[in-house]
Amino acid sequence: MALAYDGAIQRLIDAFNKLPGIGPKGAQRIAFHLLSADEQEAADLADAITEVKAKVRFCDVCGNVCESSPCPVCADPRRDHTVICVVEEPKDVMSIERTREYRGLYHVLGGAINPMANVGPSDLNIAKLLDRLKTDEVKEIILALDPNIEGEATTTYLSRLLSPLGIKVTRLASGLPVGSDLEYADEITLGRALAGRREA
Amino acid sequence: MALAYDGAIQRLIDAFNKLPGIGPKGAQRIAFHLLSADEQEAADLADAITEVKAKVRFCDVCGNVCESSPCPVCADPRRDHTVICVVEEPKDVMSIERTREYRGLYHVLGGAINPMANVGPSDLNIAKLLDRLKTDEVKEIILALDPNIEGEATTTYLSRLLSPLGIKVTRLASGLPVGSDLEYADEITLGRALAGRREA
Repeated sequence: MALAYDGAIQRLIDAFNKLPGIGPKGAQRIAFHLLSADEQEAADLADAITEVKAKVRFCDVCGNVCESSPCPVCADPRRDHTVICVVEEPKDVMSIERTREYRGLYHVLGGAINPMANVGPSDLNIAKLLDRLKTDEVKEIILALDPNIEGEATTTYLSRLLSPLGIKVTRLASGLPVGSDLEYADEITLGRALAGRREA
Repeated sequence: MALAYDGAIQRLIDAFNKLPGIGPKGAQRIAFHLLSADEQEAADLADAITEVKAKVRFCDVCGNVCESSPCPVCADPRRDHTVICVVEEPKDVMSIERTREYRGLYHVLGGAINPMANVGPSDLNIAKLLDRLKTDEVKEIILALDPNIEGEATTTYLSRLLSPLGIKVTRLASGLPVGSDLEYADEITLGRALAGRREA
């Protein structure tokens, strides 16, 4: 019996289905959306995919994704070059930028220490961080890793590695998320919030 | 202050964010997935998008999407050309094909009657359906529209339009979904299931 979908549609559905967070139904919905969308929208999407692979590279200084190395953050003289915020992934840089509370530099590790997945310190972008500490006028390192087992392990590792260098090493505060309910906080978060209490 | 994302990445996130079912977080996740994916996967996706817009058209007979007109279903002599199943969208054709219970032809309306969205019978692919009834050897029309207000209105409209032509007009059964719980069925569905009860 003939298939109801012809080749090109099925190939498009399959291609979208491979992306994270998109299942078969979502992929089908997107494929039909693109089919009925105007030529320009589809062309823009295809071009954006091709362009990002052609243009985007990693910053030689901080390891963030960028089009030119050093990246705009590392190259910006208005930013505070005495503070480096260490994060796991490029998207974490964007999360911190969105707070509009931070004016320093970044360093992207490209992951966290995870023995289960065979990711050790040597697989992370740590050597370049040590290089930066030699040449830069860095006064503080903020460890902003994910608050999970892998992030904690990486925080502990980096803290032990960096503290002897005489640079201030800090980490993000643990506590209750703003807008949440104390009743629904887990014990560990509530325990950390208590331990980290401050003058009101 | 410099942006953390360079132009190409932001353009890719924006392009994905426009697709149905993909929010800003999902778009960002997909963009970074593509950044770290191998060249081939990204190229395949971009090509699939370009290809589908270049190749896919609507079948002149049934209105389904296809690469050649008439589509493989309309052109297949092994299918039952005496039955036409009328659906709203091309994706509904695939849903019915997946049951492997249907061997007839299809007719895709391209939507349903919806006065709130200014969609009337003249905006749907109904004229071509009437043409097919003149020339084809059709004995039965199955109305397989969505079981919502717009689908019901379209079913009623088509039923009144087609019945005088002396062709058998049927519609999909309403009732309890298989695998569901009687306790959680809404009153209308349960009422339909009662009204449509059959010999066990």
